[in-house]
Amino acid sequence: MGEKLEKLKEILGEVSDISHAAAVLGWDLQVNIPPKGHEARGQQLASLSKIAHEKSTTDEVGKLLDGLKKEFDGADSASDEAAMIRVASRNYEKATRVPSEFIAEQAVVSSKAFEAWGEARAKSDFSIFQPHLEKVVELVKRYVSFFPPTDHPYDTLLDDYEPGMKTAEVKAIFDGLRPRQVELLKAIASKEQVKDDFLFVEYDEKKMMDFGMDVVTQYGYDWSRGRQDKALHPFETTFSVTDVRITTRFEEDNPTATLFSTMHEAGHGMYEQGVNPSYERTPLESGTSLAVHESQSRMWENLVGRSRPFWEHFFPAFQKTFPSQLSDVDVESFYKAINKVEPSLIRVNADEATYNLHVMLRLELEIAMVEGAVEIKDLPEVWNTKMEEYLGITPPNDAQGVLQDVHWSGGSIGYFSTYALGNLISAQLWEKINEDIDDLDDQIRKGDFGALLEWLHKNIHQYGHKFEPQTLVEKVTGSKINPDAYVRYLTKKYSEIYGL
Amino acid sequence: MGEKLEKLKEILGEVSDISHAAAVLGWDLQVNIPPKGHEARGQQLASLSKIAHEKSTTDEVGKLLDGLKKEFDGADSASDEAAMIRVASRNYEKATRVPSEFIAEQAVVSSKAFEAWGEARAKSDFSIFQPHLEKVVELVKRYVSFFPPTDHPYDTLLDDYEPGMKTAEVKAIFDGLRPRQVELLKAIASKEQVKDDFLFVEYDEKKMMDFGMDVVTQYGYDWSRGRQDKALHPFETTFSVTDVRITTRFEEDNPTATLFSTMHEAGHGMYEQGVNPSYERTPLESGTSLAVHESQSRMWENLVGRSRPFWEHFFPAFQKTFPSQLSDVDVESFYKAINKVEPSLIRVNADEATYNLHVMLRLELEIAMVEGAVEIKDLPEVWNTKMEEYLGITPPNDAQGVLQDVHWSGGSIGYFSTYALGNLISAQLWEKINEDIDDLDDQIRKGDFGALLEWLHKNIHQYGHKFEPQTLVEKVTGSKINPDAYVRYLTKKYSEIYGL
Repeated sequence: MGEKLEKLKEILGEVSDISHAAAVLGWDLQVNIPPKGHEARGQQLASLSKIAHEKSTTDEVGKLLDGLKKEFDGADSASDEAAMIRVASRNYEKATRVPSEFIAEQAVVSSKAFEAWGEARAKSDFSIFQPHLEKVVELVKRYVSFFPPTDHPYDTLLDDYEPGMKTAEVKAIFDGLRPRQVELLKAIASKEQVKDDFLFVEYDEKKMMDFGMDVVTQYGYDWSRGRQDKALHPFETTFSVTDVRITTRFEEDNPTATLFSTMHEAGHGMYEQGVNPSYERTPLESGTSLAVHESQSRMWENLVGRSRPFWEHFFPAFQKTFPSQLSDVDVESFYKAINKVEPSLIRVNADEATYNLHVMLRLELEIAMVEGAVEIKDLPEVWNTKMEEYLGITPPNDAQGVLQDVHWSGGSIGYFSTYALGNLISAQLWEKINEDIDDLDDQIRKGDFGALLEWLHKNIHQYGHKFEPQTLVEKVTGSKINPDAYVRYLTKKYSEIYGL
Repeated sequence: MGEKLEKLKEILGEVSDISHAAAVLGWDLQVNIPPKGHEARGQQLASLSKIAHEKSTTDEVGKLLDGLKKEFDGADSASDEAAMIRVASRNYEKATRVPSEFIAEQAVVSSKAFEAWGEARAKSDFSIFQPHLEKVVELVKRYVSFFPPTDHPYDTLLDDYEPGMKTAEVKAIFDGLRPRQVELLKAIASKEQVKDDFLFVEYDEKKMMDFGMDVVTQYGYDWSRGRQDKALHPFETTFSVTDVRITTRFEEDNPTATLFSTMHEAGHGMYEQGVNPSYERTPLESGTSLAVHESQSRMWENLVGRSRPFWEHFFPAFQKTFPSQLSDVDVESFYKAINKVEPSLIRVNADEATYNLHVMLRLELEIAMVEGAVEIKDLPEVWNTKMEEYLGITPPNDAQGVLQDVHWSGGSIGYFSTYALGNLISAQLWEKINEDIDDLDDQIRKGDFGALLEWLHKNIHQYGHKFEPQTLVEKVTGSKINPDAYVRYLTKKYSEIYGL
């Protein structure tokens, strides 16, 4: 390996260590922090982030990258080294374009906006949040201005979460998806609803937690390189390929949600555990984008974890664990119950048939905000109108409407669409996997997930950041990201359940 | 505040953040890390330590300190600012004298020595550890050579743990202590032994843990700024004055040890929680030295937690918690049992009457190693001879002798004496406290620790690093560190228990 590359890897290795240290501090903040420990932790995280930024934007890094780009010009562009230089250059370019004073200003604005959002949501009063969101959007526009012009200003934001994706692509994908999901939803609404009351009775927390852990153990989540803790909002976090942690929560009024949350986060976790260990401490470590990540979590949660074969395997044990709740329930009723479709107000509780509609609504509003096509003060009204249009329901208040998500208060604009894209990718991969593993359902029915995980490791996980999401999806499935497979999946599943 | 001081505080604040981040990573390593996560964590800790070293040894810091020393020359030397500059200069001086290549070399040698020590202890074979310890000692001597000559080469090492303390002082203190402790021990040995078999039966882990937590809650350990977890080796660690954590363990074959361990670590924790919050992120944050720290932990563990008034308050509840183990035991028998004196091989299990002898033995060997007065290969023999001389027992093997402690493998030479100095300080403070609070025993007998903690906050805790240990002890008690109070304490306590 050349001297320049060696030096670059040394510097970026240290940056990776700092980022992972910040991840540990962030995990601890959500899992363990004592009540009065928040403020100091925020300061520590700010310092680590500042140092990582300083170290990754020095002239030395810039010169090394310039030299390396020349050195590797014409070399095998599919090599790990070429990919590493490509990703490192992209990161450097992004990091150096944004002045550190701007980052500091954004941190202050976000912190205040987050606080205001909390109060606004508690009081269900958008006017408390409005001036802060206006500032957030103003800063987002300024952020965009640091970058060269793109086809659409939203492209710059999207690229931070989905490298290489364009707003026009996402719009086209969603335009092809929305009417078909709305149509499916209408068809379902005309049928008799399934019964799911037995899901909402009392379940023992520890037994539910343990069952979830058993499931993901069978999935292949590696506990020797991970652990699960409780957190208010479940998440996955990576400290190294040998330490990938998940969290879950238990909701009294929705006890089985724990199961699906654990499967979801373990899906993220198995992706991270599967990245090529030689990418450790380089820009190629970790999953390549939020959407591809979400394709993994949603696959293990939904395509596997809410499937009939899965429950044909697990239901007897689940029923035995919870006899008083489930002795009168058969596997078919249980399967239908966990797949009940019902338009609802809150995205995070939405079922598979409605979830993407929540996301599309948000994307449209984000694009309109960035374009200046909507005034912030009008957001609640626009939100409610779209909810009625897509889901046929109108939020009774802003807390259950436009104020429900935290993302905008933190300046995360450009993030939401990755949730829906992840669903689409999961179904595209699923069709391909079923071509390659022709008895996959039978394997799942036996509780055997080895071939599935191996396929994902081989085709997705191992590559880490090497390929951009569109490239990876096309390489694996032969097509770019598109809604067809997901619509086929939903239609088939719900046709069976609801007799469409 | 001057511009220079402002700038220095900004830089050192960031260094403090990095060190606290490292503390979080270290805590997580001992409390949570999955089996395969160790190596990556070691790398992350090494990077943080390198960055903290870089940031605290720049020419800019040097120039700021030079300027500030002139600026504050003749100013009120008792001011916080003057103390901050004094401590920052000392830290800078130390950090810049040691070349970073040396630190890297020491890290490698220590890591191998630690591994070898583990194997040597497991096999009880000193020859496995010997060559590594020889290298460790060689490096320690080189470390000393980076500093200006002192009266004794060991001074440089001691100063890292006890700023300002001299080898000659410690020797003089211990010379005044050793014969009196040996004499006391002989007197006790001639008496009938107390019965303590009921301490070594089965106790429920959770109940024992909970009882320990109740006790330290009454002590005044602030859970809104802390938490307790389980770890293999109990310790206290500080992330900020608002996040001070303790750990404990449960040993099946010594179940009540959990109680005293929790009290001990909470003693450290209350010190850290009591430091002036305005010292946060400055060189004055945290306790001033290991010995003063140990004076706090040993006070709450022993002078309070193994006292008769303490158990007069807590024993009824403890007996009620463990009726099958303790229904036939009265408070007096229990008090005697937890204070049983018995020369034993292992320092960490030693009682109050023998503990310091273990420490003195180690100090003598350390000084001899640094002087070159003993060959490493002869250590086991010298160890065993001294054990016979001080404690009247000879280790049957090296695992229970010279190989029992981890410290030397990590290059921590100069550390041990702080354990014994802490005991001495705790007794000196105790006499002073009893002068100031004349009904302290009665308060403890009522489970009221408020006045005691307040006294410690006011006289010790709040000052953080402001005073060097000897200065602080003299300021508070009127005397420098000396063994008289501790000998008086031991003699009185054991005269009562053993009827001397």
